[in-house]
Amino acid sequence: MTQTIAWLQVLAATPSASARRNAEARQQILTKPPGALGQLEALAIHLAALQSTAQPRVERVYIAVFAGDHGVAAEGVSAFPQAVTGEMIRNFARGGAAISVLARQLGATLEVINLGTVNNPGPLDGVKNYHLGAGTANFTLEPAMSEHQLACALNAGRHAAERAKLTIAQLFIGGEMGIANTTAATALACALLDAAPEKLAGPGTGLDANGVARKVEVIRRALNLHNNHLTSPLEALRRVGGFEIAALAGSYIACAQMGLPVLVDGFIASSAALAATRLRPGVEDWLLFSHASAEPGHRAMLTALGAQPLLDLGMRLGEGSGAATAVPLLRIACALHNEMATFTEAGVSEKAS
Amino acid sequence: MTQTIAWLQVLAATPSASARRNAEARQQILTKPPGALGQLEALAIHLAALQSTAQPRVERVYIAVFAGDHGVAAEGVSAFPQAVTGEMIRNFARGGAAISVLARQLGATLEVINLGTVNNPGPLDGVKNYHLGAGTANFTLEPAMSEHQLACALNAGRHAAERAKLTIAQLFIGGEMGIANTTAATALACALLDAAPEKLAGPGTGLDANGVARKVEVIRRALNLHNNHLTSPLEALRRVGGFEIAALAGSYIACAQMGLPVLVDGFIASSAALAATRLRPGVEDWLLFSHASAEPGHRAMLTALGAQPLLDLGMRLGEGSGAATAVPLLRIACALHNEMATFTEAGVSEKAS
Repeated sequence: MTQTIAWLQVLAATPSASARRNAEARQQILTKPPGALGQLEALAIHLAALQSTAQPRVERVYIAVFAGDHGVAAEGVSAFPQAVTGEMIRNFARGGAAISVLARQLGATLEVINLGTVNNPGPLDGVKNYHLGAGTANFTLEPAMSEHQLACALNAGRHAAERAKLTIAQLFIGGEMGIANTTAATALACALLDAAPEKLAGPGTGLDANGVARKVEVIRRALNLHNNHLTSPLEALRRVGGFEIAALAGSYIACAQMGLPVLVDGFIASSAALAATRLRPGVEDWLLFSHASAEPGHRAMLTALGAQPLLDLGMRLGEGSGAATAVPLLRIACALHNEMATFTEAGVSEKAS
Repeated sequence: MTQTIAWLQVLAATPSASARRNAEARQQILTKPPGALGQLEALAIHLAALQSTAQPRVERVYIAVFAGDHGVAAEGVSAFPQAVTGEMIRNFARGGAAISVLARQLGATLEVINLGTVNNPGPLDGVKNYHLGAGTANFTLEPAMSEHQLACALNAGRHAAERAKLTIAQLFIGGEMGIANTTAATALACALLDAAPEKLAGPGTGLDANGVARKVEVIRRALNLHNNHLTSPLEALRRVGGFEIAALAGSYIACAQMGLPVLVDGFIASSAALAATRLRPGVEDWLLFSHASAEPGHRAMLTALGAQPLLDLGMRLGEGSGAATAVPLLRIACALHNEMATFTEAGVSEKAS
């Protein structure tokens, strides 16, 4: 089947300016000093605009975790063996991974999308299998993906977003799992931000200083190899990205097109968000940012995305875990916005002028 | 009735060193890179030690909001009229205030303790009335409280902590309401930290630059007046504190004595936490810190308390709202600790050595 990516050209939806104005006005008359709820006020206003409603809600959360292996793992850029990607897919499905616990805690829907791993974990409840390959190719030697693989991965992301929309989800979270994927995410961010690898590369799951130096060198070789092709965000994604990163980017673009708010996770997810906003300007309107990762290069990505993440807890796990951890803050922001009394309703005196 | 504060001398309970070691060991074998959950790992370990259990839980949360008026409001140090304290007590009781919404959202118990306000809001469901006075005295002219009032306020805090313990709460949150209480909290912190008022004073509920300058001047006058008595934390609390600040300090000390973990709110609550740790060393073991307030002087207090707050959302409302907002993070930390699979259970390969 030919995979088309013509849908990438569909415009992102437009948040509601009137819902935003109404929400801003309501925040001014709730029984608190104006601004006293800090970022929770901005969050409620943003969600009201995205959901085009006076009463934003984040009860129904859809978490899609995209998994895939990376050929660049052969360069020794991860602290964990490559078998872990497939093993963790089983762990997701059986409920023992961090994101499984978090999804239960939130009452969220969790689905796992295996795009292609070295070890096939076999059929598992709650896991969709795409078999795009036994991981991507080693991008220090050739492009990570063929054009067909890239299209399939983008479409897999789009389909996850569409399933979320069908469940009338109020928020989409994309997670990821893939040994060596901080290397791919760093290479992609370097390409998109025209940044040097040593500025963005970090320890990932736990490299020591020598390991980080090797990772920098690996990324530098890849950027040199693909140098003439990296000004196109689509080519950058194909050449130095990964299956799950492309799927995340596709899911974010589809969410923005359908008007479904996205809560972006950490380092890997942010590289996909960068790619998505370059592929389809306007996507950025639909992205909320959950947390600042412990991975040092995340700051530069967040700055480029104009993001003010809600949490900074030194997390660096991926899987969507940082985004899931921030969901209660969105729920609290909505509850305060929807349920607090106004000065008039409560008979409370306003600020002296 | 004579009010005794001899109980302040009772030692704080000792967290369980063995539960801490066991929790630390468990975090190392859960299916994630070691440390990848950042502060959530430290939080679960801390709660395990405080609750002396392998399975820490924060399902039952008790929120006590202490309210009182401040004589120093006469010096024009608040952006809101003094009537607001009593009006907000009604708003708490009727469910329209931020902390009311948050308590519902968390399924937490909420009680309001009115220690003494200028306007008596009358009997209200869920509000305990102490009638210690129509607010404290203006501490630029005399001590804020008599010794009797101070003892009553400390005991009111202790009794709230005891009620929490009786409901087998797993976490105590103390909130506060009192027009002009950032001035009292700042004066108290200046006394306890031997800091200059201009270093700690900020806009509170919304003073402009002139207002902050006036507040600094008011605090400086108070510190000069009481100067010879401020080396005693009890006298500092009596002379420049407030009813609700003393009650908070009493509640924190009683929680530490009974072994009930406390989640400290923002600026005012931190001044009470400072006083509590000076009155009864060891209390600090039982304090978790929820958020960094937008009130600029809060950083200095947090540093003095050795605190690493979980959130930094620019909140500056009080009422216990910052602490309540952080409760889901504690619940998530516990769920991850208790429910994640180990590497062995999940059959996942560990980090290459």
